[in-house]
Amino acid sequence: MKVLAVYAHESPTSFNAAMKEVAISTFRELGYQVKLSDLYAMNFKAVADKNDFTRQSDSPMYKYQIEGMHALKNNTFSSDIFAEQEKIRWADFILFQFPIWWFSMPGILKGWFDRVFSMGFAYGGDVGIYNDGGLKGKKAMIAVTTGGPQPLYNPRGMNGDINKILYPIQHGILYFSGMDVLPPFIAWSVAHFNDKQRKDYLKKYKGRLLNLEIAEPIPFHPNSTYDENMQLKKGLKPEI
Amino acid sequence: MKVLAVYAHESPTSFNAAMKEVAISTFRELGYQVKLSDLYAMNFKAVADKNDFTRQSDSPMYKYQIEGMHALKNNTFSSDIFAEQEKIRWADFILFQFPIWWFSMPGILKGWFDRVFSMGFAYGGDVGIYNDGGLKGKKAMIAVTTGGPQPLYNPRGMNGDINKILYPIQHGILYFSGMDVLPPFIAWSVAHFNDKQRKDYLKKYKGRLLNLEIAEPIPFHPNSTYDENMQLKKGLKPEI
Repeated sequence: MKVLAVYAHESPTSFNAAMKEVAISTFRELGYQVKLSDLYAMNFKAVADKNDFTRQSDSPMYKYQIEGMHALKNNTFSSDIFAEQEKIRWADFILFQFPIWWFSMPGILKGWFDRVFSMGFAYGGDVGIYNDGGLKGKKAMIAVTTGGPQPLYNPRGMNGDINKILYPIQHGILYFSGMDVLPPFIAWSVAHFNDKQRKDYLKKYKGRLLNLEIAEPIPFHPNSTYDENMQLKKGLKPEI
Repeated sequence: MKVLAVYAHESPTSFNAAMKEVAISTFRELGYQVKLSDLYAMNFKAVADKNDFTRQSDSPMYKYQIEGMHALKNNTFSSDIFAEQEKIRWADFILFQFPIWWFSMPGILKGWFDRVFSMGFAYGGDVGIYNDGGLKGKKAMIAVTTGGPQPLYNPRGMNGDINKILYPIQHGILYFSGMDVLPPFIAWSVAHFNDKQRKDYLKKYKGRLLNLEIAEPIPFHPNSTYDENMQLKKGLKPEI
């Protein structure tokens, strides 16, 4: 298996860094090929703008997504976007390692998606959306840390159901782009871990990674479950 | 009323830019004082990292949130963060104008929240969370544009219920920080507008802005509806 790990944490002493290290070493033990996008170390540009294209299209009105379509066809993306798209083309499986900040991902990773998952590449244009998305056939998984403890993210907890909080990421980005999304690995409230808890958690994480190939993806509704108006067919329950 | 508008779109010909202009002119008509944070024009740094502090704390292990607490107490934030926090302290109402990208906000705005809504300022430390958050007494509202048409964001639509998709932002960031959150203004599928539709939509938006002061906030559950384990008390329905 060919794995791309996209990692978004500044600090090499963080639990996110430890998780990233466990993932890479486990993948190597398994004989997988691994590439890493360490966004902080790369000083990855987090802001989508016209500097992402080495040439502009002749579109009368500038629109970022349209310029992205043009750049994809003419090979005129900035070199950093091109390099990330090449890694994605190469990969069978993409792992996203990041801390949950403000119930979402850090800005640097959001900027990575804004820029790299371009129109025509990940969705739209000549490719579709959801199970017809541009990254169809690949698998993805997020591995995250939280500030608050697990019970806060229960369906009746103060922060709300974690699966619903992660829905815009797992369904709205990863599945939208055509990937099968494996269940997330969530390390709860890591700031309060002692050494033993850290080790136990990393061991548990390694267990998950050893079984990636047999993991069942989250059963998001495929496009065929929606009618011609993109409404869920009768008898099915909305996911969120 | 003192209004801060936080605006995250690159292009002055975008519908987001037009909405921002309508908002500012309407606020001025109403006699409100207005400040603008035009994140693209400011080239706002979207990545939270140790350069956000002019001095480090003496904490043995670097942690961004802890450094933020230290910077708040010692007035050692980078000047751009300090300036944004001063605008927030000044404002009664904060408007966020941005396009929905990947079912969330652009990276530049996410980075703004990551950096500016620091621990101890917006939440935690000496202040609480949710209706005890650091920005208690202020109001907030998001005004957004979507790519897809409205029916896709119905509870049975292919993209999922827009209120649930916006929950991590409206509840998880704005309400978490103590603000009353007014219902969002959503401009659906703006890329396909003709001139008349643009004008009609902007007029509708202006109507909403003229009535800001009488708008009822989204009735998120206050902290008192959760028990000592931060679980919703019996008889109440989860929000998501």
